Amino acid sequence: MSGLAVAGAAGRMGRQLIRAILERDDVRFCGATEHPKSELVGTDAGLLVGSASLGVTVTADIALVDDSAETIIDFTSPENTRRILRYAAENKKKLVIGTTGLNDEDKQLMRQAAEQTAIVFASNYSVGVTLSLELLAMAASVLGPDYDVEVIEAHHRHKVDAPSGTALSMGEAVALGQNKNLNDHAVYAREGITGARPDGAIGFATIRAGDIIGEHTVMFCGQGERLEITHKATDRMTFARGAIRAALWVSQQSPGLYNMADVLKPGRS
Amino acid sequence: MSGLAVAGAAGRMGRQLIRAILERDDVRFCGATEHPKSELVGTDAGLLVGSASLGVTVTADIALVDDSAETIIDFTSPENTRRILRYAAENKKKLVIGTTGLNDEDKQLMRQAAEQTAIVFASNYSVGVTLSLELLAMAASVLGPDYDVEVIEAHHRHKVDAPSGTALSMGEAVALGQNKNLNDHAVYAREGITGARPDGAIGFATIRAGDIIGEHTVMFCGQGERLEITHKATDRMTFARGAIRAALWVSQQSPGLYNMADVLKPGRS
Amino acid sequence: MSGLAVAGAAGRMGRQLIRAILERDDVRFCGATEHPKSELVGTDAGLLVGSASLGVTVTADIALVDDSAETIIDFTSPENTRRILRYAAENKKKLVIGTTGLNDEDKQLMRQAAEQTAIVFASNYSVGVTLSLELLAMAASVLGPDYDVEVIEAHHRHKVDAPSGTALSMGEAVALGQNKNLNDHAVYAREGITGARPDGAIGFATIRAGDIIGEHTVMFCGQGERLEITHKATDRMTFARGAIRAALWVSQQSPGLYNMADVLKPGRS
Amino acid sequence: MSGLAVAGAAGRMGRQLIRAILERDDVRFCGATEHPKSELVGTDAGLLVGSASLGVTVTADIALVDDSAETIIDFTSPENTRRILRYAAENKKKLVIGTTGLNDEDKQLMRQAAEQTAIVFASNYSVGVTLSLELLAMAASVLGPDYDVEVIEAHHRHKVDAPSGTALSMGEAVALGQNKNLNDHAVYAREGITGARPDGAIGFATIRAGDIIGEHTVMFCGQGERLEITHKATDRMTFARGAIRAALWVSQQSPGLYNMADVLKPGRS
Repeated sequence: MSGLAVAGAAGRMGRQLIRAILERDDVRFCGATEHPKSELVGTDAGLLVGSASLGVTVTADIALVDDSAETIIDFTSPENTRRILRYAAENKKKLVIGTTGLNDEDKQLMRQAAEQTAIVFASNYSVGVTLSLELLAMAASVLGPDYDVEVIEAHHRHKVDAPSGTALSMGEAVALGQNKNLNDHAVYAREGITGARPDGAIGFATIRAGDIIGEHTVMFCGQGERLEITHKATDRMTFARGAIRAALWVSQQSPGLYNMADVLKPGRS
Repeated sequence: MSGLAVAGAAGRMGRQLIRAILERDDVRFCGATEHPKSELVGTDAGLLVGSASLGVTVTADIALVDDSAETIIDFTSPENTRRILRYAAENKKKLVIGTTGLNDEDKQLMRQAAEQTAIVFASNYSVGVTLSLELLAMAASVLGPDYDVEVIEAHHRHKVDAPSGTALSMGEAVALGQNKNLNDHAVYAREGITGARPDGAIGFATIRAGDIIGEHTVMFCGQGERLEITHKATDRMTFARGAIRAALWVSQQSPGLYNMADVLKPGRS
Repeated sequence: MSGLAVAGAAGRMGRQLIRAILERDDVRFCGATEHPKSELVGTDAGLLVGSASLGVTVTADIALVDDSAETIIDFTSPENTRRILRYAAENKKKLVIGTTGLNDEDKQLMRQAAEQTAIVFASNYSVGVTLSLELLAMAASVLGPDYDVEVIEAHHRHKVDAPSGTALSMGEAVALGQNKNLNDHAVYAREGITGARPDGAIGFATIRAGDIIGEHTVMFCGQGERLEITHKATDRMTFARGAIRAALWVSQQSPGLYNMADVLKPGRS
Repeated sequence: MSGLAVAGAAGRMGRQLIRAILERDDVRFCGATEHPKSELVGTDAGLLVGSASLGVTVTADIALVDDSAETIIDFTSPENTRRILRYAAENKKKLVIGTTGLNDEDKQLMRQAAEQTAIVFASNYSVGVTLSLELLAMAASVLGPDYDVEVIEAHHRHKVDAPSGTALSMGEAVALGQNKNLNDHAVYAREGITGARPDGAIGFATIRAGDIIGEHTVMFCGQGERLEITHKATDRMTFARGAIRAALWVSQQSPGLYNMADVLKPGRS
């Protein structure tokens, strides 16, 4: 059974990753790290998720994690991710990386590590969102320019920007399917006298209300028919669960750099 | 059986009104007028809707319409509507008016006529939209400020302004239910760094695509629950049908000026 | 500030009620009871919701609750509810009751108590659902028999019956608005050769999937237009929050027996 | 520019096919046939669609159609389709066939003809529905057994069976993607005490109301997220338009038997 370790185990994402591991009976939780200065180093990781002892001690360094951990899941900081990349390459540990803010040098290091071991790197580990992006590119390509495309997204009242990053990714998937550039065709908002819809526009509409976790609909609207692809996140755990799915998949792969779409590719998983 | 006459019978709305009358067997079509210069004056109104002879001749003046017409439906021009108002007041004909662009003097004339006969005047004769406005005011009043309100509307690609007039009416119905002014709280579009949602905002999101006739959703989003009221127009005839419903209703009323909400009031119809 | 006590504080609903009280700053939590045999009697109620001490000791009897509790919220058993009804009548405590399984005698006792104090009794304390029922009756009444009505509901995979109780209540609200009996017109499922839709039918469609907490849509579908009223519960806390809203409202009322619709009536709250 | 002929030009589908051809400027209408006994034989095809003369005379036999017609679109009867298959094979005319009720012998004849010329044969020519089936199989394959699948369909009040043929095709696409048989897992309706949802079920829910042309949603519902694919037909012309798209595509193909999914394949059209 695949053994998994979680880096940054006491962070919000780290705790959710542990919970997502514990939900399944086909993976084994066998390692957790935290920042050397954290007072949680040395305690049992069960503490982090309000459960009984899990028999896994939080360590200050990835090198101290039990060797039965074949795959490391890392949603931490660029600095820590660099250390983990080097460790994984040397020790043939598989990796699932969700760290944001990596620069070009970091990505170069990642590509080098991927010559030694299998690594999944993605900015969004939701299975449904990843699949949606594939479906959208395919739909846009098949339906062609006669179908107007609109991306509608809804999030909670605290969100400070619009449209959401996922909505933009969806717009890019559509643009890719239509062999064009999102920036040249995006209409991000409409107000007042807008004139008729420009041919080939990719429109966005933004809803902000209550405690909505995240809902995205892409509408392809032709003459006399409409196709809609909708994703609704109802629980933030869905991102952690996707990362565990990636960890299970990457444990079976040869060295290389993969993304979440690879994880979901039929016949490959 | 209630006898109806249609003013401006050869216009797009006029033809739809005739069709809507012919759909029902509880009203009787017995009069049609057109502009004196129209070459259709003197022909049978069946020509206007691609049907066999209806036994109704298109006349150039409302005064020439068969006296069995108790109610006149008028979606024409302010000039023609003034003539019809005077005629109806003198001859005790009931009226359903959908003419747009009436000025204050015209409305004063309408109020005077309404002392002599029953008149329905509305800017939107859709039964569903009128009902929606009532439901929205009620919902806004009951749910109060803890529920964020968003108005989402979708129309065809040719529409040149945003949000739609109906979406604005819906926002006003919500504001009314919350005892506040729409203008002070409306957020008509969102793009870029918007900051968190202002307390009490009434948000709008606009979709433009394909051949959508008109769809409106108002979302009330609280903590842990959401209420949505949605109206979808799938056929432009729905407006003509609402006007016929109003005509049937007004034929039973005492003199006075009514709106479409009065027509729909339970127990009154 | 209104002082509230929670009966059956250690049950699932009891804990959610306490959490819902703590969310607000216009009510004060000042009493909690549990079954005399519970080992939680004598402990601080903070324990029940994973918070720090709340200064409220769990007692074994409603009579032992601090006298500053003006209103008691009771979602327990018929036996316990009878005791609470008697206590409240004698001591002029306001009541919010959500206990299920009350028999005719119990309800008679409730009516007697309501001569002495104000009591809210409802089977569903969701604000949104209660409001939806009102809106549905109104819409059904206005739209009349030309609009086909369908009730669509979705719940999680563990639900064992269909349609849901709430869907049935919605069907009843529609039937009420149309002055007819749900039983005579309900079509609960469709499969195979069904024939055309019976005139006046109220149809139901049931969806079971994943972890859906509860979604209900009622569709009124006429020629060329459609009105939909949708309620989505995304958090079970919404029921507890509605009960607290009822408690706040009942604290201002004269003796009498009220339901959740009374609580939401505009101008009364 | 591709020249198209329409068999059975005076039937409901025949007229819609002509209208769909006239909508486009990249195809040319150049032939129409009707049954030899039809009194429309010999008239101009413009009559069939209420337009001015189109310069195309309705003929009683496919052999009499102008030779500039490279592709024949045939939604007629098995008997007529057999005649057209033989004519097309001999004369290298491309074919788009939507005739229903073909038996095994007819299909054998079609395969033989397809050795001589390119033929598209499909039971549903809607671009959106065809694409949906592809997306559904892909989504089902990627998401796997942890996502509950439900198919919800809505049609007008006159439809006499449930679920719709398209809903069943969608269920089959999902079953295909999950490597299982729809019949073993379909739950076509739910009423009363159903018990919990069976693992791996593919559920159906049927809505019948008003004048709905056809709406289908397939929901994939996992823990914490949901993916929905929705198709809405708002105009029956959409089927005719899909057939014209197929005709344009098949005019570029080598001999062979194709389906609508081939027509939509990216890179091939």
